[in-house]
Amino acid sequence: MADMMSPLATPFPAIPPIAGVRLATVRAGYKAWDRDDMTLALFDEDTTVAGVTTQSKCPSPEVEWCRSALPLGRARALVVNAGNSNAFTGAKGRAAVEAITARVATAAGCQPSDVFVSSTGVIGVPLPIPTAEGGVDLALAAPEANWEKVAAAISTTDTFPKGAMATAIVDGRTVTIAGVIKGSGMIAPDMATMLGFLFTDAAVEPAFLQQILSAANGRSFSCITVDGDTSTSDTVLAFATGKAGNAPLGSFDDAGADAFAAALQNVCLQLAQLVVRDGEGASKFIEIAVEGATSDESARTIALSIANSPLVKTAIAGEDANWGRIVMAVGKAGEPAERDRLSIRFGDTQVATGGLAAEGYDEAPVAAHLKGQDVRIGVDIGLGEGRATVWTCDLTHGYISINADYRS
Amino acid sequence: MADMMSPLATPFPAIPPIAGVRLATVRAGYKAWDRDDMTLALFDEDTTVAGVTTQSKCPSPEVEWCRSALPLGRARALVVNAGNSNAFTGAKGRAAVEAITARVATAAGCQPSDVFVSSTGVIGVPLPIPTAEGGVDLALAAPEANWEKVAAAISTTDTFPKGAMATAIVDGRTVTIAGVIKGSGMIAPDMATMLGFLFTDAAVEPAFLQQILSAANGRSFSCITVDGDTSTSDTVLAFATGKAGNAPLGSFDDAGADAFAAALQNVCLQLAQLVVRDGEGASKFIEIAVEGATSDESARTIALSIANSPLVKTAIAGEDANWGRIVMAVGKAGEPAERDRLSIRFGDTQVATGGLAAEGYDEAPVAAHLKGQDVRIGVDIGLGEGRATVWTCDLTHGYISINADYRS
Repeated sequence: MADMMSPLATPFPAIPPIAGVRLATVRAGYKAWDRDDMTLALFDEDTTVAGVTTQSKCPSPEVEWCRSALPLGRARALVVNAGNSNAFTGAKGRAAVEAITARVATAAGCQPSDVFVSSTGVIGVPLPIPTAEGGVDLALAAPEANWEKVAAAISTTDTFPKGAMATAIVDGRTVTIAGVIKGSGMIAPDMATMLGFLFTDAAVEPAFLQQILSAANGRSFSCITVDGDTSTSDTVLAFATGKAGNAPLGSFDDAGADAFAAALQNVCLQLAQLVVRDGEGASKFIEIAVEGATSDESARTIALSIANSPLVKTAIAGEDANWGRIVMAVGKAGEPAERDRLSIRFGDTQVATGGLAAEGYDEAPVAAHLKGQDVRIGVDIGLGEGRATVWTCDLTHGYISINADYRS
Repeated sequence: MADMMSPLATPFPAIPPIAGVRLATVRAGYKAWDRDDMTLALFDEDTTVAGVTTQSKCPSPEVEWCRSALPLGRARALVVNAGNSNAFTGAKGRAAVEAITARVATAAGCQPSDVFVSSTGVIGVPLPIPTAEGGVDLALAAPEANWEKVAAAISTTDTFPKGAMATAIVDGRTVTIAGVIKGSGMIAPDMATMLGFLFTDAAVEPAFLQQILSAANGRSFSCITVDGDTSTSDTVLAFATGKAGNAPLGSFDDAGADAFAAALQNVCLQLAQLVVRDGEGASKFIEIAVEGATSDESARTIALSIANSPLVKTAIAGEDANWGRIVMAVGKAGEPAERDRLSIRFGDTQVATGGLAAEGYDEAPVAAHLKGQDVRIGVDIGLGEGRATVWTCDLTHGYISINADYRS
């Protein structure tokens, strides 16, 4: 992890072990650094899995591997490599993934397709197979690790380890969902990937796990942006060991399914917001809530247009209530909008309404709001019922320094 | 204009007067500054006009005025205000445009719809009508100005005046196309707008002028990006006085129409590239050529995804041949692409080909190329015949300083 912690960092929460999951972190040695850079999670039999992966047209071999294994719905192991994303490495990269999964499958007594792999780091350099195999051997013999060690071992340019948890009552039993995530830019310097992993002791059918993970993803990971740049390796996987002993959840008709889905959504949202709080160079956490759009999807497109605008992000960095830039970003989104129905709010203060500046609005609470670390922008399009909320950070000299000043 | 000139600035070229165009610049006083901030161009009778305006859903009243007047195809005057964009000002902003056009129309003996208006500057403050009317009166009595004075008077945070010209032989006569443009960010600090104006002594039917201007726009102004932020006021207008005496050009069947269209395209391209050279904080001029896409439009989408990626732009600022970020930007564009067919070139050096790093490529010419001010990136998608070239600049601390460090 980087030396200087994000000013928006939060402490790592207390997260209990998840029954049926055994964690280990070791130093495989993907880079010349003194830290663990390989994580191995072993799952008991009958663990189910679901996942969402990058929309990139140029995904890593790890992403392709996970995509082909996910429809089977079963998992016995997860390997995460940090320091080398193995992306854009052709057949050599694919060979590394096959070597890792074969070695773990042999040791765990399962099929290679039960082994999931994610890698994050430099693009274009094939993952060195001897290093990976050595790491797997060390990890198989390593003592059990906790969640904070795992969160640190999967990180690259992250400035703090990121994890979250939630519980739900399902079938009369308390089930726990633990999650860890890494990501700072969508791509950090020469590094790729937002990787997120959720683990629960609940019993969940894989198709239903996929359904609620996909829905949660649409309102969490898909609603954050640091710089608008989509990684070649983005992956979120959820593993359910079933050790809580509940009757397996197969649909929303099952008792506790709503509570479980809400808890999973909650963990996803916590993890997603932690990534924004570790955004490269971030000094402000920004929530952008759009309402009154013609549809929820239209609202999300407008909200992301605002969240990805470098001029909006630099204005917030400068603590400048520059709502003209919000108008610009709404206008460029390409979605239905009418200038004369548009209203804009900073914090709780209406600054523009019905097509022009709010007459004589009080600038003092706006200035005070923008001086804080958490900034809220509200936009009412005034046309319909569509709404969406997204989260981003500001754009500062820190982002330029991280991405331009240091050569790879 | 800003105090510090862009390192990519070029000298203002020699551009002759255009017969049938009378130019004046004056200080209306939109801001407390000691410079001309209103430009008036008067055109002789029978001048035709064509134009393209912003795609923003929240355009300025000036853009709406131009859009409604353009179908008539005739122009007698152009007024350009600098220092206040009049955007997002509702009925008050519309009243200011009507006051300006009425006053000029009375003096010039024409209809208000023959008078075109563009404004650039702060968003959300109605253009003060007495200031605008006083400026018009001064401009009507002012001595004739040259193109360099006009280029300076329409500028806001631009760091140098920008103009271009070309000639063509039409119907046995040499016709001249002169152009001026302003723009530095798509929006500068609290300022809006790229405004471009072309003037020719050729006789051109308005529908044909519109046809060739739209085509030229698609390969020039629509192929540049500084920060991906689209202004509320972007406008390019072309005026043709007909004083060269050629038989009016009405279609590509007319003698000289091809030459004229090529010259107009050339002026548009020169002007568009000058805006990139004055990009906020720019230290490198970047050309991105994409070939092998499934269509020209797909190639343009991919090229703009690369050109708008903050991670690509910061890598170039850092003189870092980080082709992994190019892969990322191709992948996120959402257009057909296959990792294993992708090739990437910096300058004349192939750095990646067929899905992985080019074996043992020579880094010396790549490093030398990236140290220069003009950087060329080539991407071959390897799927089809579609191609497009776009231009952008790098993303530096200068951009952050301009947009975040100074409060409005």
